[in-house]
Amino acid sequence: MTYNVQIKVMPLKDLLDPQGKAVLGGLKNLGLNEITDVRIGKHITLQIDAATEDAARAIADEAAKKVLSNAVMEFYEIEFIN
Amino acid sequence: MTYNVQIKVMPLKDLLDPQGKAVLGGLKNLGLNEITDVRIGKHITLQIDAATEDAARAIADEAAKKVLSNAVMEFYEIEFIN
Repeated sequence: MTYNVQIKVMPLKDLLDPQGKAVLGGLKNLGLNEITDVRIGKHITLQIDAATEDAARAIADEAAKKVLSNAVMEFYEIEFIN
Repeated sequence: MTYNVQIKVMPLKDLLDPQGKAVLGGLKNLGLNEITDVRIGKHITLQIDAATEDAARAIADEAAKKVLSNAVMEFYEIEFIN
């Protein structure tokens, strides 16, 4: 079966996010002063062929750990759709 | 009230995603052959001060349209957390 998996990779909460800070400045210049914080990460969708959801989750976890995220600076969350 | 808003910005489904293709190649080299497709976009979290959820959504929508996404190549989805 084919599973659609979404992985969210975000900068760790304790770290500064310079890209987010820059975008926040841009939004304020546009007059969107109601926005008080911006953080930017990656959103990755995978299609995984696996027998069970657990097997698909293990594969997604390995991909996230080894390739898609950097544990020093980022955390990730895995979510199944449909 | 402060709203936490998540915006997912992904390449349009009809377009090639070269970054995703490159990552797919890397995952296959690692032996993760069960993964058949990868698409990579941005995941953005905003904190918005607004009176109502509708007002916050309008602000997020304006930010997404004007700054966070490029309608020629990307689509976005807005989601509220908590």
